[in-house]
Formats: sequence, structure tokens, C-alpha cells
Amino acid sequence: MDKVNLGQELSRLDSCWDPKVVGELNDHQVKIAKFEGEFVWHRHEREDELFLVLEGAFDMQFRDRCVTVSQGEFIIVPRGVEHCPRADREARVLLFEPAGTVKTGDRER
Amino acid sequence: MDKVNLGQELSRLDSCWDPKVVGELNDHQVKIAKFEGEFVWHRHEREDELFLVLEGAFDMQFRDRCVTVSQGEFIIVPRGVEHCPRADREARVLLFEPAGTVKTGDRER
Repeated sequence: MDKVNLGQELSRLDSCWDPKVVGELNDHQVKIAKFEGEFVWHRHEREDELFLVLEGAFDMQFRDRCVTVSQGEFIIVPRGVEHCPRADREARVLLFEPAGTVKTGDRER
Repeated sequence: MDKVNLGQELSRLDSCWDPKVVGELNDHQVKIAKFEGEFVWHRHEREDELFLVLEGAFDMQFRDRCVTVSQGEFIIVPRGVEHCPRADREARVLLFEPAGTVKTGDRER
């Protein structure tokens, strides 16, 4: 029952697209990650994913549109929906998803 | 797949201790709430709860200690653990918990 300071945890992150688990509850995990550049197109068969922007902004690309998510905003990507995050400049993001979610979903990276 | 702006949602909150659902994923809900004053001692038999402070600070009281959680910090209260949030000044908090979680747990309010 210790608290977690997101700023401290963010300062310890090294590489981009490499989420770190900072909390667990029920069957879910809280992760933080740095986004910069483009990730990979993928989808999750069984997991909805939440992305909350802590600093900066990124584009969540879908096959038919793109949503820019900025600091203080979140987006939920439903299971089965193909997506690919992209950030022109470094963004810092909190993720919430079921434990065991593979970051590339149905795609190897 | 629309994004949610937490600032906008927070500006629409009226009363304290009255969480509003702003997102749903898997079997969980994202809620926001204003905390001011003292809530009620309670516990949840089956649900872990996450509290992330968006603005201000609050004290999460446990029977044996108290943890002050400030902006940019979160705390996870495990199932079964009695707790009572308290805020001397208004705090704005994001909650993450299973859908159907009763805010007062085992206690009427």
C-alpha cells in the first residue's frame, strides 16, 4: 500500500516503447512508457487498452482515422481494433491493461 | 474510440464523493471524483481500487497508518483492507476499479 510517484518512475525510464509495470490490481497492470517515433500496427484479441497521456501528445492511428491524444487526455482502444501509436516528439504515457497483454498484440516486433 | 479530456470532465463534476464514470474497459471502470472532507471507513471484499491524484492531495487513512497522496501519485488499496479517504482541501482524483464496485464497500452511507 505504498504510493507511486509517476514523475519519479518516468525519470527512470530508458528506451521508448518499453513499458514498465508500476502497479497491479485485480487482474490488471498499470504501466508507464515513453513514446517516440512510430510503433507497429497490431491488435489485441481479448484486451481493451487504456492510454493516458502524462506529458506531451501522441497520435493513435486507426485504419480509418487518427486521434491526437494530449496531456490530460486518455483513449481506450477496444479489443480487436487495429492500431498504431506514433509520437513526433517524446510523449510519456500511462497504460492500463490486463496482466499478460503483449505490447505488439498479434504482431511480432 | 473517442478520447476523453479529464479537465473537461472534472469541470462538470458537482458534488464531492460522487464519482462519475468516464471510461470502461474490460470489466473495469475509470471514474473521476472530487474529494473534500472525510468519506467513510469501508472495505471492498473482492475489489482492489486505484486512486490517482489529478489535482491537489488527499490522505488515505488505514487503521494503522495514513498515506498522503499528491498530484501525480497513485495508491492501490487491496481488497479487504479497511480505508477512509480524507481531504482537507478539495482534491480531484481518478479512480480505477472493477465495474459494479460500491463506493462505500461493506458500509452504507
